[in-house]
Amino acid sequence: MEIVRPTLVLNKTKCLQNIELMVEKARRHNLSFRPHFKTHQSAIIGSWFQSFGVDRITVSSVSMARYFAQNGWRNLTIAIPFNILEISELKDLPSDCIINLVVDSPEAAQEIGNKSSRDLGIFIKISTGYNRAGLEYSAVPKIDEIIYSISQYNHLKFLGFLTHAGHTYQASSKYEVQNIHYDSLKKLFYLKEYFSPDFPELEISIGDTPSCSISENFMGVTEIRPGNFIFYDLMQHSVGACSIDDIALRMHCPVISKQPMRNELVIYGGAIHFSKDYIINTDGKNLYGRVIIRKNNEQELLDSTNYLSRLTQEHGIVKVNPSVFSKIAIGDIIEIIPVHACLTAHSMGRYLTNKSEFIEMMPRF
Amino acid sequence: MEIVRPTLVLNKTKCLQNIELMVEKARRHNLSFRPHFKTHQSAIIGSWFQSFGVDRITVSSVSMARYFAQNGWRNLTIAIPFNILEISELKDLPSDCIINLVVDSPEAAQEIGNKSSRDLGIFIKISTGYNRAGLEYSAVPKIDEIIYSISQYNHLKFLGFLTHAGHTYQASSKYEVQNIHYDSLKKLFYLKEYFSPDFPELEISIGDTPSCSISENFMGVTEIRPGNFIFYDLMQHSVGACSIDDIALRMHCPVISKQPMRNELVIYGGAIHFSKDYIINTDGKNLYGRVIIRKNNEQELLDSTNYLSRLTQEHGIVKVNPSVFSKIAIGDIIEIIPVHACLTAHSMGRYLTNKSEFIEMMPRF
Repeated sequence: MEIVRPTLVLNKTKCLQNIELMVEKARRHNLSFRPHFKTHQSAIIGSWFQSFGVDRITVSSVSMARYFAQNGWRNLTIAIPFNILEISELKDLPSDCIINLVVDSPEAAQEIGNKSSRDLGIFIKISTGYNRAGLEYSAVPKIDEIIYSISQYNHLKFLGFLTHAGHTYQASSKYEVQNIHYDSLKKLFYLKEYFSPDFPELEISIGDTPSCSISENFMGVTEIRPGNFIFYDLMQHSVGACSIDDIALRMHCPVISKQPMRNELVIYGGAIHFSKDYIINTDGKNLYGRVIIRKNNEQELLDSTNYLSRLTQEHGIVKVNPSVFSKIAIGDIIEIIPVHACLTAHSMGRYLTNKSEFIEMMPRF
Repeated sequence: MEIVRPTLVLNKTKCLQNIELMVEKARRHNLSFRPHFKTHQSAIIGSWFQSFGVDRITVSSVSMARYFAQNGWRNLTIAIPFNILEISELKDLPSDCIINLVVDSPEAAQEIGNKSSRDLGIFIKISTGYNRAGLEYSAVPKIDEIIYSISQYNHLKFLGFLTHAGHTYQASSKYEVQNIHYDSLKKLFYLKEYFSPDFPELEISIGDTPSCSISENFMGVTEIRPGNFIFYDLMQHSVGACSIDDIALRMHCPVISKQPMRNELVIYGGAIHFSKDYIINTDGKNLYGRVIIRKNNEQELLDSTNYLSRLTQEHGIVKVNPSVFSKIAIGDIIEIIPVHACLTAHSMGRYLTNKSEFIEMMPRF
């Protein structure tokens, strides 16, 4: 298939390798593996996990749960503080589905208990330092209060503690990821020790791809929920979670203008394709993507002095060295490695495989 | 209709007011009015312009041209340096459509001339300082070369010069917008004086919403192409292009978690809903949206010490004052005024009107 506009190309072989490595790691550490499917949002890509024996998944919305349930998944955790306004939509999920929800307040637990009659597993969300949602590990009285609320409903079952140490995404090295991860483990272990006497099957579920990719220490953890690792991206590479070669996504973009005074290539490919997440380049500027060009039919990854430096709605500005500039013509396709795979995939809505087939994502509505 | 998840609510009355004001302004200054439809991407919203006599539009892609042509529009400018890889798709546009393209190189003009046989108007893109695509106004030899290339094809017609002074979006005041606008006018006027003897009907087309909203000076300009003004947003407000009350979009988001230690509300509403564009708040931090709450059935716009301060894929963090914090409960809906209407609308894919009807945008594929 000839690519003529911004197209997100997926390397299935790399995805399968990335899945296999994480499946192996979970097995090695005796962890339940519940990958987060918000990264790819695709039934077909989901089926690739099934071939490795994966039977439980994580999603980030009720509609995503419905989509994957319709595509055969029967064990789902909706890993966001449950939006109680959607409570009535839980009944649309097949009755033979195991559904786990996440709460960080007694109010939410009570609302769920009062307004839904289906059996539900309930995780309590803990913040180990990301400071988004969740309770501090030291907030034991509040945790007790939530557990008590859950216990008032026969159809709710307290499962354990769930966290997402998303601050690892901002780490500057593997070592910083390890430090954050150990800090999380320590806090979660405290909770496990404290609550295990009453709940011997207590689960400890962690989620971030950097920790799951880098660490070999999962002390006290019972479940991992990484999502991004199936594709990886430049942000993951920047924290040491993957090599550039592990990254399974490339955005193919046509060059539509050349700016010789600034050695800039203007590509058709902008904020609506990549999203606007960035990392900081070695020159201190925002970097929105790394560049691959084709030279004598060989692919060449350019060093990071050549990079996607700016995005507007449909335009991208690629700064390149003069020697690269002279090699590229208007109408050429260049490939960009994205900064944040999840947002880029979500923005594009579908993938083109290296076998020239489109893989669709879940419908938006 | 009960809102239970992130929903982009559109105030049609405000849109009609915003359209009317711009239509009036164009009329007052004897300007052709060719609004950019990439902002709303909706046939229904497009039809609101028709009721004001608008008969020509701007789009940003061939597929957007096709969508609006299918919905009755017969005079379209595709205002991005034309992606020559899509040249064969021009034949899918109805033959009775007037189609104008934009180029900034002789190569692109030649490719278009060689590979398409339909009548096409051609604008030459000028950069007046935004430094994205386009030629410097002083690059007269290059401009001559492009005009010569165009003249080699009977089916191509050189129309004039087109610019987008997008650097007005980064201005810090109305006065800075005016300065940028005058600088653009001066450069374009130079080109007009120089080329008018050979092209007496030469068009000068400008595009940015801040200049079109703020200025009353359009010396030498023949056409304006603003897009954002139909909705406006916080970025436009920050440069003085609109009042808060002119902004026609609100994202309604459920509160899913409360963080008393930080006085933060966690909303269901993240990067996939708002996009990640931001402006700088008075505290020097990134601001992703302003907050409206409902108090005794009255809407209250909170001051900017209460703001959407952080976005991840589905979560938003709203920093609020303690007095606001205590008033909001989990399960409440709060309204957020978005920073960048075009990207937010594109991310959401549809609008809910204040008459509880959904307005769809063009399909993604």
